[in-house]
Amino acid sequence: MLKVGVVGATGYAGEEVIKILLAHKSVSITELSAVIDKEESFSSIFPAFKGKLDIICKKPDPEAMAKNVDLVFLGLPHKVSMDVAPVFLKAGKLVIDLSADYRLDPDVYKIWYGAEHRDKTNLGQAVYGLPELYLEKIKKAKLLSNPGCYPTGIILGISPALKNGIVEFSRIISDSKSGVTGAGRKPDLALSFPEVNENLKAYKVNDHQHKPEINRILSDVAGHAIDIIFTPHLIPMNRGILSTIYLRLTKSLDTKAAVGIYRNFYKGKPFVRISDEGKLPQIRDVVGTNYCDIGLKVTGGDLIVVSCIDNLKKGAAGQAVQNMNIMCGFPETEGLL
Amino acid sequence: MLKVGVVGATGYAGEEVIKILLAHKSVSITELSAVIDKEESFSSIFPAFKGKLDIICKKPDPEAMAKNVDLVFLGLPHKVSMDVAPVFLKAGKLVIDLSADYRLDPDVYKIWYGAEHRDKTNLGQAVYGLPELYLEKIKKAKLLSNPGCYPTGIILGISPALKNGIVEFSRIISDSKSGVTGAGRKPDLALSFPEVNENLKAYKVNDHQHKPEINRILSDVAGHAIDIIFTPHLIPMNRGILSTIYLRLTKSLDTKAAVGIYRNFYKGKPFVRISDEGKLPQIRDVVGTNYCDIGLKVTGGDLIVVSCIDNLKKGAAGQAVQNMNIMCGFPETEGLL
Amino acid sequence: MLKVGVVGATGYAGEEVIKILLAHKSVSITELSAVIDKEESFSSIFPAFKGKLDIICKKPDPEAMAKNVDLVFLGLPHKVSMDVAPVFLKAGKLVIDLSADYRLDPDVYKIWYGAEHRDKTNLGQAVYGLPELYLEKIKKAKLLSNPGCYPTGIILGISPALKNGIVEFSRIISDSKSGVTGAGRKPDLALSFPEVNENLKAYKVNDHQHKPEINRILSDVAGHAIDIIFTPHLIPMNRGILSTIYLRLTKSLDTKAAVGIYRNFYKGKPFVRISDEGKLPQIRDVVGTNYCDIGLKVTGGDLIVVSCIDNLKKGAAGQAVQNMNIMCGFPETEGLL
Amino acid sequence: MLKVGVVGATGYAGEEVIKILLAHKSVSITELSAVIDKEESFSSIFPAFKGKLDIICKKPDPEAMAKNVDLVFLGLPHKVSMDVAPVFLKAGKLVIDLSADYRLDPDVYKIWYGAEHRDKTNLGQAVYGLPELYLEKIKKAKLLSNPGCYPTGIILGISPALKNGIVEFSRIISDSKSGVTGAGRKPDLALSFPEVNENLKAYKVNDHQHKPEINRILSDVAGHAIDIIFTPHLIPMNRGILSTIYLRLTKSLDTKAAVGIYRNFYKGKPFVRISDEGKLPQIRDVVGTNYCDIGLKVTGGDLIVVSCIDNLKKGAAGQAVQNMNIMCGFPETEGLL
Repeated sequence: MLKVGVVGATGYAGEEVIKILLAHKSVSITELSAVIDKEESFSSIFPAFKGKLDIICKKPDPEAMAKNVDLVFLGLPHKVSMDVAPVFLKAGKLVIDLSADYRLDPDVYKIWYGAEHRDKTNLGQAVYGLPELYLEKIKKAKLLSNPGCYPTGIILGISPALKNGIVEFSRIISDSKSGVTGAGRKPDLALSFPEVNENLKAYKVNDHQHKPEINRILSDVAGHAIDIIFTPHLIPMNRGILSTIYLRLTKSLDTKAAVGIYRNFYKGKPFVRISDEGKLPQIRDVVGTNYCDIGLKVTGGDLIVVSCIDNLKKGAAGQAVQNMNIMCGFPETEGLL
Repeated sequence: MLKVGVVGATGYAGEEVIKILLAHKSVSITELSAVIDKEESFSSIFPAFKGKLDIICKKPDPEAMAKNVDLVFLGLPHKVSMDVAPVFLKAGKLVIDLSADYRLDPDVYKIWYGAEHRDKTNLGQAVYGLPELYLEKIKKAKLLSNPGCYPTGIILGISPALKNGIVEFSRIISDSKSGVTGAGRKPDLALSFPEVNENLKAYKVNDHQHKPEINRILSDVAGHAIDIIFTPHLIPMNRGILSTIYLRLTKSLDTKAAVGIYRNFYKGKPFVRISDEGKLPQIRDVVGTNYCDIGLKVTGGDLIVVSCIDNLKKGAAGQAVQNMNIMCGFPETEGLL
Repeated sequence: MLKVGVVGATGYAGEEVIKILLAHKSVSITELSAVIDKEESFSSIFPAFKGKLDIICKKPDPEAMAKNVDLVFLGLPHKVSMDVAPVFLKAGKLVIDLSADYRLDPDVYKIWYGAEHRDKTNLGQAVYGLPELYLEKIKKAKLLSNPGCYPTGIILGISPALKNGIVEFSRIISDSKSGVTGAGRKPDLALSFPEVNENLKAYKVNDHQHKPEINRILSDVAGHAIDIIFTPHLIPMNRGILSTIYLRLTKSLDTKAAVGIYRNFYKGKPFVRISDEGKLPQIRDVVGTNYCDIGLKVTGGDLIVVSCIDNLKKGAAGQAVQNMNIMCGFPETEGLL
Repeated sequence: MLKVGVVGATGYAGEEVIKILLAHKSVSITELSAVIDKEESFSSIFPAFKGKLDIICKKPDPEAMAKNVDLVFLGLPHKVSMDVAPVFLKAGKLVIDLSADYRLDPDVYKIWYGAEHRDKTNLGQAVYGLPELYLEKIKKAKLLSNPGCYPTGIILGISPALKNGIVEFSRIISDSKSGVTGAGRKPDLALSFPEVNENLKAYKVNDHQHKPEINRILSDVAGHAIDIIFTPHLIPMNRGILSTIYLRLTKSLDTKAAVGIYRNFYKGKPFVRISDEGKLPQIRDVVGTNYCDIGLKVTGGDLIVVSCIDNLKKGAAGQAVQNMNIMCGFPETEGLL
């Protein structure tokens, strides 16, 4: 049994990682930590886990935790992970980081996250954990940088079209809609129920910190610099991201052909499902699952893509476990179906 | 006092018209009708109106109703209005129709609504009731065709840019998100709470019946044929439509200049508010009001417009009353502030 | 025009008071204050008020504000009001306090709010602002203590039965369900959207700070010490409190007779509506209104009462304005219909 | 592998049974049926099941289905099950019925469901499937009558107190709050999103068809006729029932002692969890699980019980699978943790 620890166990992503791991055959959760007032059993903090996970959730002490784990998930805020990951790496442990700290070049990171990167050594070896694109690299990763929630759905929704050269590089638009857990578990007036419920807003229009991450990977896929237009929206629901993506076709193509191209691209990938022609996915098809469901429609000269994920599963914890499975040689879908 | 009737009084739009009229100084509601099992007081059907509106809601009988009203609001389904409006018009009454029956040319109507138009005579004289664009025509209208909910927010969000020639005619994209009352009050599994709540979906992608209406008016504004890309989405909230609109700039322009152009365009229009540079409207700013709030952001070569309305106010009943005010010479804002 | 100030203008109750006053004929809002980072126009803080209320919202300075108002609404947290009210009272201004600071005897206050009362002088003269019970006293009030949200609906739901001696004094149970705005506008993890949405909980079971307030007034009504059993619940909706009240009948009675007793009790009271026999109110009947709707059902030996209010209207701001109307000799319903 | 069929596969309960069975080690789903327009794969109807369950969902034909199953779940409306169950029983198959058709004596059934019972023979042998009370009988059941959603949470919340003689038999009150899936998947205006969202109501006050079921079982537990007061409420959330139960103590007792009595009663029962003294369960602790979480508080002379279940799991499909496990000799928790 692989001994696994979770740092940031009380965040939405950390809790979700734990939920998934409890059903995983080859893993034992040996350590939990979080910034908490007093150390107590995880099931005291979250009664839903009563009888399922009663070990103590400790205050953060990476050095101590490193002695009792083979692999650690870091569910930490940005700018904190880069101080914690090196401790585990130095101790020879595998690290799966769910923050943005290892997703960007240091100069881009500084622009978008407002801080000098403090772990450039490890940054250079971090592997971007989108298994549908980087499977082989993930197999050998020691430090896995788990993708952001928006980037996961958007990159998976655009890559087949870019890779197959059927759409223009310019004016790629992703109009994305996210549930509220995407903002993390924290006291924040803007996330308060009456502020979000019966409301809807666009925010950080074309100025969201996930944009450089999306651009970086899409440019890698296209072999050409890509700069998308990206508008995130906050939706009054707990979970899920639906991205409506507008791509300009470079050649005449019908929906059926597009579906064929996408299915071919994701052949053998267990967590991407392409909707039949004439159908589109919706959030409830993917909530609670690790799937990214993608629907396509050719209309006029545009290919419109609808991409759906559960932001806490394929957009965070589920993908993190998928990456763990690949890194550790477990079946890719173990614990995730 | 103007004697007013409401046909379809139990629908969301009809009920909202009534709510507004109850606070209107120059109007008396004399007649209500709806397809109901038994005729009873309106406050028996909707207890919220107890002590406010206790007149009987009758079964439909346009001829009879026409004798006791000066003006009638038709809150009827598409394809029903065109059989009812002529009765009131023939009796010399003013008609404000909230359906789609008088918004399109008969041939386009047939394509999108699947029926031959049965009142082409009156159709030719119907005035499209978007007061910010067609004020003078509305003043003289006998048959007012009230705009659709999506078209109202989208047309108001795009017109200033088109009229001022700052954006391209092609590849105008409106990614629109609507609350559930937009679909009307009716038993429908797809609108059932558990099907909508914690869900989110795109529907009728670039194939929604409001598209030809939008195209018709925008083409009129631009003096050039416009064919937008329009994707509606269903959001788990009761009210509100937020449209995120992507326009390709034809000239270099910053956000401040765009704000100036929009404010100039809507100068003196009481129900359009343009957000300050750096701010964007959200749904809760407009819910319960007749405002259309519009925010702008220039980014790269695009002008991104965020347009918010309450679909039952500015998107239906509020705009209908605004039109009544103009048609009858009342102050445009009476009952609406 | 009465010059009115609102302290705590950015809270839910303060904002709602302002919304109501904007439609009030005899009132002019001259001063707003709140604990804010910088002083700016109220419509900059809440864009929904753009074009409706553009005066500056200032940082708190009661002495200065007192010079420019005739009456002030205090929408402050408990334990803050008792330091602010005396300033306005000393300056000879009318005060309507929406906090709990003037609702209880000082010794009871200390037990439930954990603080010594610091304004016992004025406390002795404060009038409890439930107009349906204390109209004459309110007319002469200088310091009006506005009732809590739960107490309003519960007291109105029980008083007629107690006063008419048809129910037992003991084992009165109120099982109450509240929307989230009842908890105030503040950053609080427990009020965060994903924590409240798709969830439901009882809290402070028979231990809520509104219990002594309810007991005090009901004891006054009954002329006998009353100690209710009171369980509040948090419901995933923005507004509204529905209390289901279980009362043991002391005599044989049918629902029709109970309806008669209640209607008689509230005869001439504009904001209490008793449902017809066989019908029960629901939250949407009262949301956005100042009504308390009450439904009754006799079953077995019990009288079950369902009482509905909008917690921000009749449960806070609406009732506060109703009290202002009475204190100032305006029509009781002005601004509230 | 046990061959299992699901009749009514497209209802909420049927779909949930299927979801659970897909993760069950000893079961193979061989047959699905529902009232549908055309026979197609289950994953075509519900795309969420794509790649997980692609067999055809057929139109109802019990005789044909009986040939290819060992056990069948009936997720049918009341008054339909009693015509279908006999077909499977005659063919020697095990039947788990989720409707109310086999829960009541025929005369009581007639009063509450308005129909003569048409299968009195099998009714006499039906076993009430609440495993925490009737384990031994369930082991031998051929026709299992699965409890209603409200009854499950209420009976589990009251039984320990009744059985231990610590509460009075009279004036037992259950104030229950349910999510919307409890009403079933069907087009119904009253269940439409805008009618339920931002609303809250009591319904069928002390007159709900689950009341005689609760009374029947509680009377059996108490050895004394019980007639509870039961008020159901509809809450704007998808899943979950929270019942707040008021019981009059017959002896002096503190919360700690009550917790002890309840824990002792449910010793060894895997799906009932009693909260620690001072804590109460909430809906999110049980959503998605088969647990019934129960919290207790002694206050004054009353024992207040808060009982939480997921209405589709422990309140329907989860309990149905738990019963299947017991009937077939599988581990009781198989597929349910």
